Amino acid sequence: MNVESYLQRRQKRVDAALKKLIGGSEKPPAKLVRAMRYGLFSGGKRIRPILALASGEALGTNITRILPFACALEMIHSYSLVHDDLPAMDDDDLRRGKPTNHIVFGEAMAILAGDGLLTEAFRVMSEAALKTGQDKPAALQAMLEVARGAGMAGMVGGQVADVESEKLKPTRKRVQYIHTRKTGALLRASVRVGALIGGASKRQYEQLDNFGASIGLVFQVADDILDVEGGTLKTGKRVGRDTDLNKATYPAAMGMQKTKAYARDLLGEALSALDPFDSKADPLREIARFVVERAVPTNK
Amino acid sequence: MNVESYLQRRQKRVDAALKKLIGGSEKPPAKLVRAMRYGLFSGGKRIRPILALASGEALGTNITRILPFACALEMIHSYSLVHDDLPAMDDDDLRRGKPTNHIVFGEAMAILAGDGLLTEAFRVMSEAALKTGQDKPAALQAMLEVARGAGMAGMVGGQVADVESEKLKPTRKRVQYIHTRKTGALLRASVRVGALIGGASKRQYEQLDNFGASIGLVFQVADDILDVEGGTLKTGKRVGRDTDLNKATYPAAMGMQKTKAYARDLLGEALSALDPFDSKADPLREIARFVVERAVPTNK
Repeated sequence: MNVESYLQRRQKRVDAALKKLIGGSEKPPAKLVRAMRYGLFSGGKRIRPILALASGEALGTNITRILPFACALEMIHSYSLVHDDLPAMDDDDLRRGKPTNHIVFGEAMAILAGDGLLTEAFRVMSEAALKTGQDKPAALQAMLEVARGAGMAGMVGGQVADVESEKLKPTRKRVQYIHTRKTGALLRASVRVGALIGGASKRQYEQLDNFGASIGLVFQVADDILDVEGGTLKTGKRVGRDTDLNKATYPAAMGMQKTKAYARDLLGEALSALDPFDSKADPLREIARFVVERAVPTNK
Repeated sequence: MNVESYLQRRQKRVDAALKKLIGGSEKPPAKLVRAMRYGLFSGGKRIRPILALASGEALGTNITRILPFACALEMIHSYSLVHDDLPAMDDDDLRRGKPTNHIVFGEAMAILAGDGLLTEAFRVMSEAALKTGQDKPAALQAMLEVARGAGMAGMVGGQVADVESEKLKPTRKRVQYIHTRKTGALLRASVRVGALIGGASKRQYEQLDNFGASIGLVFQVADDILDVEGGTLKTGKRVGRDTDLNKATYPAAMGMQKTKAYARDLLGEALSALDPFDSKADPLREIARFVVERAVPTNK
């Protein structure tokens, strides 16, 4: 399979679904809708929703049932970026080469747009879960996993640990603590959501969750490598910005060579977890390879 | 019944339940937990959770089943206060006579504590909904009502409209638009939550929802009156602060006499909506009377 065309197709599918979710009949203030949409449609690659869909695909599920939960994951990811960019947080004026939300709409609106995206994510999941034909306990478990992945012991907790660590030496333990939570937890939750809505057996769920744990980390490891070695295109950020800020990164904690070896180890773990699955899990396999290859090419 | 002792008893019950919900086994960062608890335990009267419990009581439900949802409503209310107080929003240093969250923990932590409280509210509801014995569709519908009440067409939308209206003349229409959303929507959702988890029939749900619509508005109307005539004790804010900021209030839009008449009209509507219910709805009746009597005493 061609992973790039797969990713593009899925991205379009997610974008089309997301467009329908913000707005609606109850007439929220127009400026709020604009600020929420600006946060949601700013060139994101939709990795979390695509992981949720691909996990469902690995089980042979019709992805339409997973789509609303996939969109909710992206809404939560978007809110976190809007809040992370705020002056009181990372104080970023640009994201993916475009002015950040608070630069365009002002700080108050950016805070509220983030709050709105987070809240609407749960509205979207509740609505989807109530539909006839959805397995209600599975949908509730998926919502719980999303809330855990995004909450105080997940993404928000990781962001706090990251902010707190700026004055501290980045040790491997500290970096691992931050990234399993800040980015890993929601990525892992994405895979869980696909598995749950896809009706995974207990054993299938465990294997997919192992895949999710590895993939959740390797994204950040690859990102850290690209940030040092030339990731401007990818992130729209200046190369080396994380190092400037003495941020907790893997290369800073364990050196570049060990970081690259760690990325390949995680890829190996991710792929092993998928051994019990047939070719329907190829999208998951290819996504994992794609992420690691960009940062640590085999033939270089 | 003595409404003040009823409110105290219920407040204690809610506080005890809330204490158990933040922290737990997954070890979120300690400072985040402190900031979230500071937001949650700062002298709130727990009106939203009490309304949810009292609605369930009106139907004869054991309130234990409603308690987690009631707590979630308070967590959402708390997050909204933490974010509203931020420098980019209302820029308040004091709330209920205590330093606000960002004054104590810093702005970044206050943003994240709010995000955490909002996310954990849905974690708490999902966990409760998954429990054996909970009616899953009713629990999902309750979560949907909470998300709608708190989201872009509810509380967040109302807050945006409020921020936007600071430069505009407060007309009755504009004030009504803001308050049905900013405070009314989550109060109304609270009554709905109690009705849904309490297993209301269609007709009971409609009557309780009518009560919720009136009570949701009258809280704000009473608050606006007390803010002008001496509510310092109640809110911890300086009297007249809302007027200083040219905020959208009922007295500013329609004059004090009409505002007081409107409060009594809303009380009448709220009480009529409860006509079909027996004495089990007395807590709801007394709460409504209590709110209006404090602002517009009958014997004055």
